[in-house]
Amino acid sequence: MGKKVEKYVYFFGKGKAEGKGNDKDLLGGKGAGLAEMTNLGIRVPPGFTITTHACVEYVGLGKKFPEGMWEETLRHLAKLEKAMGKKFGDPAGPLLVSVRSGARVSMPGMMDSVLNVGLNDGTVQGLAVRSGNPRFAYDAYRRFITMFGSVVMGMERHDFEELLDEKKNELGVSLDTDLDGDALKGLVAKYKDLVRQRTGKSFPMDPLEQLRMSIEAVFESWDAPRAVTYRKIHGLPHNMGTAASVVAMVFGNMGETSGTGVAFTRDPSTGERRFFGECLMNAQGEDVVAGIRTPFPVLELEAKVPQAYRDLMDIYQKLELHYREMLDIEFTIEEGILYMLQTRTGKRTANAAVRIAVEMVDEGLIDRETAVMRVAPEQLDQILHPVIDPRSRIQVVAKGLPASPGAAVGRAVFTAEEAERLSREGERVVLVRAETSPEDIGGMHAAQGILTSRGGMTSHAAVVARGMGKPCVVGCSEIQVREKDRYFKAGDRAIREGDNIALNGSTGEVILGDVALIQPEMSAQFRTLMTWVDEFRRLRVRANADTPRDAQAAREFGAEGIGLCRTEHMFFEPERVKAVREMILADSTEGRKSALAKLLPMQRKDFLEIFKAMEGLPVTIRLLDPPLHEFLPHTDKEIEELSDEMGVPFDKLQAKNKSLFEFNPMLGHRGCRLGITYPEIYEMQVQAIFEAACELAKIKVHVLPEIMMPLVGYATELDFLKDRVDRVAGEVMAAHGVHVNYTVGTMIELPRAALAADQVARSAQFFSFGTNDLTQTALGLSRDDAGRFLPFYVEKGILPVDPFVTLDVDGVGELIRIGIAKGRGFRPDLKVGICGEHGGDPASVGFCHGIGMDYVSCSPFRVPIARLSAAQAAIRGKREEAAKGGKGKRK
Amino acid sequence: MGKKVEKYVYFFGKGKAEGKGNDKDLLGGKGAGLAEMTNLGIRVPPGFTITTHACVEYVGLGKKFPEGMWEETLRHLAKLEKAMGKKFGDPAGPLLVSVRSGARVSMPGMMDSVLNVGLNDGTVQGLAVRSGNPRFAYDAYRRFITMFGSVVMGMERHDFEELLDEKKNELGVSLDTDLDGDALKGLVAKYKDLVRQRTGKSFPMDPLEQLRMSIEAVFESWDAPRAVTYRKIHGLPHNMGTAASVVAMVFGNMGETSGTGVAFTRDPSTGERRFFGECLMNAQGEDVVAGIRTPFPVLELEAKVPQAYRDLMDIYQKLELHYREMLDIEFTIEEGILYMLQTRTGKRTANAAVRIAVEMVDEGLIDRETAVMRVAPEQLDQILHPVIDPRSRIQVVAKGLPASPGAAVGRAVFTAEEAERLSREGERVVLVRAETSPEDIGGMHAAQGILTSRGGMTSHAAVVARGMGKPCVVGCSEIQVREKDRYFKAGDRAIREGDNIALNGSTGEVILGDVALIQPEMSAQFRTLMTWVDEFRRLRVRANADTPRDAQAAREFGAEGIGLCRTEHMFFEPERVKAVREMILADSTEGRKSALAKLLPMQRKDFLEIFKAMEGLPVTIRLLDPPLHEFLPHTDKEIEELSDEMGVPFDKLQAKNKSLFEFNPMLGHRGCRLGITYPEIYEMQVQAIFEAACELAKIKVHVLPEIMMPLVGYATELDFLKDRVDRVAGEVMAAHGVHVNYTVGTMIELPRAALAADQVARSAQFFSFGTNDLTQTALGLSRDDAGRFLPFYVEKGILPVDPFVTLDVDGVGELIRIGIAKGRGFRPDLKVGICGEHGGDPASVGFCHGIGMDYVSCSPFRVPIARLSAAQAAIRGKREEAAKGGKGKRK
Repeated sequence: MGKKVEKYVYFFGKGKAEGKGNDKDLLGGKGAGLAEMTNLGIRVPPGFTITTHACVEYVGLGKKFPEGMWEETLRHLAKLEKAMGKKFGDPAGPLLVSVRSGARVSMPGMMDSVLNVGLNDGTVQGLAVRSGNPRFAYDAYRRFITMFGSVVMGMERHDFEELLDEKKNELGVSLDTDLDGDALKGLVAKYKDLVRQRTGKSFPMDPLEQLRMSIEAVFESWDAPRAVTYRKIHGLPHNMGTAASVVAMVFGNMGETSGTGVAFTRDPSTGERRFFGECLMNAQGEDVVAGIRTPFPVLELEAKVPQAYRDLMDIYQKLELHYREMLDIEFTIEEGILYMLQTRTGKRTANAAVRIAVEMVDEGLIDRETAVMRVAPEQLDQILHPVIDPRSRIQVVAKGLPASPGAAVGRAVFTAEEAERLSREGERVVLVRAETSPEDIGGMHAAQGILTSRGGMTSHAAVVARGMGKPCVVGCSEIQVREKDRYFKAGDRAIREGDNIALNGSTGEVILGDVALIQPEMSAQFRTLMTWVDEFRRLRVRANADTPRDAQAAREFGAEGIGLCRTEHMFFEPERVKAVREMILADSTEGRKSALAKLLPMQRKDFLEIFKAMEGLPVTIRLLDPPLHEFLPHTDKEIEELSDEMGVPFDKLQAKNKSLFEFNPMLGHRGCRLGITYPEIYEMQVQAIFEAACELAKIKVHVLPEIMMPLVGYATELDFLKDRVDRVAGEVMAAHGVHVNYTVGTMIELPRAALAADQVARSAQFFSFGTNDLTQTALGLSRDDAGRFLPFYVEKGILPVDPFVTLDVDGVGELIRIGIAKGRGFRPDLKVGICGEHGGDPASVGFCHGIGMDYVSCSPFRVPIARLSAAQAAIRGKREEAAKGGKGKRK
Repeated sequence: MGKKVEKYVYFFGKGKAEGKGNDKDLLGGKGAGLAEMTNLGIRVPPGFTITTHACVEYVGLGKKFPEGMWEETLRHLAKLEKAMGKKFGDPAGPLLVSVRSGARVSMPGMMDSVLNVGLNDGTVQGLAVRSGNPRFAYDAYRRFITMFGSVVMGMERHDFEELLDEKKNELGVSLDTDLDGDALKGLVAKYKDLVRQRTGKSFPMDPLEQLRMSIEAVFESWDAPRAVTYRKIHGLPHNMGTAASVVAMVFGNMGETSGTGVAFTRDPSTGERRFFGECLMNAQGEDVVAGIRTPFPVLELEAKVPQAYRDLMDIYQKLELHYREMLDIEFTIEEGILYMLQTRTGKRTANAAVRIAVEMVDEGLIDRETAVMRVAPEQLDQILHPVIDPRSRIQVVAKGLPASPGAAVGRAVFTAEEAERLSREGERVVLVRAETSPEDIGGMHAAQGILTSRGGMTSHAAVVARGMGKPCVVGCSEIQVREKDRYFKAGDRAIREGDNIALNGSTGEVILGDVALIQPEMSAQFRTLMTWVDEFRRLRVRANADTPRDAQAAREFGAEGIGLCRTEHMFFEPERVKAVREMILADSTEGRKSALAKLLPMQRKDFLEIFKAMEGLPVTIRLLDPPLHEFLPHTDKEIEELSDEMGVPFDKLQAKNKSLFEFNPMLGHRGCRLGITYPEIYEMQVQAIFEAACELAKIKVHVLPEIMMPLVGYATELDFLKDRVDRVAGEVMAAHGVHVNYTVGTMIELPRAALAADQVARSAQFFSFGTNDLTQTALGLSRDDAGRFLPFYVEKGILPVDPFVTLDVDGVGELIRIGIAKGRGFRPDLKVGICGEHGGDPASVGFCHGIGMDYVSCSPFRVPIARLSAAQAAIRGKREEAAKGGKGKRK
């Protein structure tokens, strides 16, 4: 109708492809890889890819193919038939195809594929005759019905597997490969009955109908709950769509010179430069990934199919050199001949990512900048994961495959639901399953670690756990998992739900009981990479640390100062909270002062030690923030106990509690509002800070205190407080006869402070954006209460991500932009940082870089992540400017 | 030292003054008035005014006169001596002066004056001799010691009055004027003893010392708590300072041809064009204002002092014509000769303000624009005050002077403290006092009305009550007030604290018991003024109204639509809340739907009636906003009752309550978050709206529904909801076969919504700024909890005003600016209004005008206030543009 018809289908085969490796957005990772390999002259079965656009339109049209797509598919099918010299649906010797999904970003196990499409009661006979292998033909047919039934027709896979097990029991064999053609033929009949019984429909015999339904299923799987969950966990957008590749079948299940495998061009666990993979003979690809049979190392192929092995060695090296990346490849060997089915960037552990990146620089494959960009900041969490303290006595009860490094401790649970439930309650859990499936994603995410009794290093559990950076042990055949009865057996010992276990994902050990974990050593390559990181980044990275120990750890992780030292944490220690309570119960300024006097020496000691640990680096100290009622108990029972302990009448305690009650404590009498109404509290804190600083200054320890006020909304609040800080600081320094350089600044955690930042800046030498509270106030969203609707919001796409994890750039970010512009408008040398939890979130760090902050501050543990994120943001910025024509360079 | 010396003192006298009427900022209202009258050739005792700057510097210097000020004062004193032909401190016949305070804005009773300065044991004799009237001299002296003692030396006035009463008892007389010279001389001796006894110091005999101390006392009274309270109540700045005028004394207490009085050029209660005032013969000014003796009407002067009366008639007319304003004047007659002591704009009731403004236009004195600017919007509250329902049977127990119009009902209280305490608890109270003093300001503000047994129409109680727009009855000598015993007697009936009484401030009636009040009729002049108001304003004014009755009232007050119809108020009625609770307790969407189905017909009826009442005008309906737990009881006892009533187990109710608990409900699961997680709630409401609208549309009633979503933060929320509104609206309209024009819009009450207004505008046809919640979130300030520090903040000047009363322009206002700019940037025809309580606050309405809003919405009662505020804002804007050179005119 005059509308320009979009090209929906791209062909590849016979050494030439319409697409290429860069077309991931359009063809998906799989389709682009197949096209690229074809163009490189690598042996790939021919086929064609239906684009992601077609999928997006299919979803948008309410599950209808876009106009012309199906006709275009049929034309390409004809081309494929010609290339293969076989006809789709030809009973005399049919062309069979696989229909494979592939999104722009690989989501292992998330999207569905259907193999052996085109088989029916007629063509299976042609396949048997033409291959001379009826067993193979019926094996393919039963696989096809199983996959098509479960993926396309919505049936339960395990219903098919039950029939398979029955058949094996009936014949007294243990492996699928022990079933002969007749057995499989009988099974096929039962499968078809099962389909009719469960769906009320016959299994479709029309190959084109099978193809159409398969493509639809691929497209629809884009919106399957488990795919949505995966994208949510990985922060991927929901509107990319998936491509569908229709590929001529080659068969790994044609006998003992046939097989299938997956491999990585380097070790995905350690990063070691060695070809690493696993195969199964007489199998189709699904058998390897599903972890049903335990595969053998790829190196053993050399003995079984030497030519295919040599080809594989050549190809993997060629591909790695071509992509200059560690790759994940899939292949099938059909009667001794190797076909490549997929190539993509290989997932890897953080340690592997670091090692590969650094070694590839050494090998001259990539430059340092590329190396820095090759490690995902989120992944570093893994490197920083605890390991089991080698000094602790541990009781190893079983050993499996070390699928994802790091150590985990927690209560054993046997379902994903239970893992999620307990984790929400604050429990640490280890998920134990026979094997995992995509439905378990949520539970895996919630667990500290994952243990399976079946599957190999590339099984679902292993791949997903590595992606998540979770310790994982798989294929642990020494244990029997009874999921329904909620226990597992290791030898004759039963470990029940709720028992503590530990995993060592680096050794494969399964350990009984609670064990101590310690911080890991960081590798030499990691240190090398981090020195490059520090060369590229502009943003400074500080840590949020409240204790001398945290301060020390932060420094070791590369923190360049403390960005947030929360003084209230110092008030919660038992002996101190008593003095705090005395202060709260005092009816007069004098009474408060005398209670505060007890806290003074303790606070002074805190600051003394923190200053020492951070010698030469700035330490931002936030004065008391929480509402006073947080220091009092609330239940009658607790009040009674406290009444006895303090010798204060119950009624008085209860009355004080009532008088301090707040409807919305988040918006109540806290932060600087306390410091203004009870100036003696902040005065004590400031006195402690300066007494500590002066003591150290006298012995030439270089201290840089930065005094920070919480919850400032009005410039007048800060004016009021700064006067008092300056006065007390002056008095203490005069008494000690030394001078200490210090600054006074403010959190910006209320929208008003950002909006009136030009006024606030008149008494502030620095701003630190407190994005936790700024998010709560700007969005009107209580973090403690949002659980009732926030997950629903994220699921429905009303919120793209949880705004407490990744900064809400359009709202909170806009306030930050305004705050910085107005603040620096008044005071050009205003120092600006962020100290909310977003300071350790890679995307948010990128925002902070882009907006010109001076530093981010995050938990010590996340300091390396923030450093790497900052470097990547700087590099991306540089590249964007270069792309714009290199006009000027940000300093 | 080279510093330019500021002129601190301005002289006036002998027909010429250094200052003039415009110099109020510098000379205070009193000083400027004296200067202006002098220049007009009116007889004013000569004197000089020390500027407000001197006061500000005095306070700033820690209670020290600025350099050179005292010397300048002494030079001007010498000039005054020359003008009067008498010497200050001359025992042979001394010059006496009054020291009077006067701020830029008049604060009646707030600032202290000292009369008869210069008297001592020596000069009093000279005065007696020179006047030939020893009684007068000692009367002046005892007055001086009383005033100086209480005002300057910090003693209790009533201690002096006790001695005075003793003396009267001793001599068996009842009036001060019955005391002869000897009696007064004896009293003076006792007064001096009292001073020594109470202060440990002798009464100062040095006239210059007296003068210096008096000026200091005037300056210091600027910061007296009661003055600070007054400024707070009236929203006046604290840094203006007060001037001190030193004026040669003329004496109203020289006998029966002497006297003093205060008058208004028109009736300050009704606005009637008649000279209206009160006098006392043989008295000084304080006697009139303090309400100690009950004065006589000014017209009666004609018989007593005919020449002075004629002069007074001439002068008041001259002054009114000169100022083109209703004036408040003070005068003294010394032995038949009239002296003017003060002229200033007269305070008046709202009705009087309206009548005077409209009549002055008729008289050609002012134009309509000036008339509109002459009525303070805050004052209109008075006009809209309820009156006693004439149909109700009332029991009048006493009658006093009708000092401030309107009717009040409440519990009798006898102290300002009790008035404030009960009012905080939500009780309506009427403050009953023998007389009021400035210390009672807080209690008067808290009370519904004020009743005093003493004092006249210009007594403290009367003046202050009129300023506050409170009904007030004064000089009610038929009652005896026993403040300490907390009752008053009317005849032989005792009315005790807590008993209900009513006042009719327009008739002076004191009524026993609770009586019904009704809305007053609005005067013809008021209607005339409001038509002028509507000609000048650009901003539309709507009302917040939730019921058909409110809607009707709003329309009568001139509302041009409903800007906020809160649907949750409809849910709280007993029969409805039951259905709401059923909905909350339902475990499924179906259960909720069936409970909602019960609410549907009730909601439909609500909307039907509101639409009818507002025919032809827009009605903005906000869908359900509060968190669901607000509909459930919370104490165990209430839950138990509900459990019985609903037949739902206690445990289930309690569990539901717990599950709905929120730490910060303000930031929780409410507003559109409910509408998104439980779409069936909003769907029911939208269905009810459109069923009502369609029914009316069928009978040609013009309805304009505007559907408004609360608590939107993200555009996606509104997208989600708008889709559903459009669908339900479409279904209902299709079923009814009629079309209704409607719009969908959103509250902007979260900072994020304002910051991302360009996105929000894509699904919003209008924005209504919900400044109550926007203030809470932008400032991080819970209105329910702020009481613990907000008053302290306002008092310390950390906040200029309560941001819940007057819009915080720098913070919340900035968000509004951003929201409008971004919203209209996307959608130029976006309709923008405000529906927070600020919509009825004059200053905030001015802001809304300036920023280009389309309308404000406020309570029906405040609609006229908003209309007037909008007109004044438009006029001010026009004048400012004209002042800038008239470049272009706002449309």
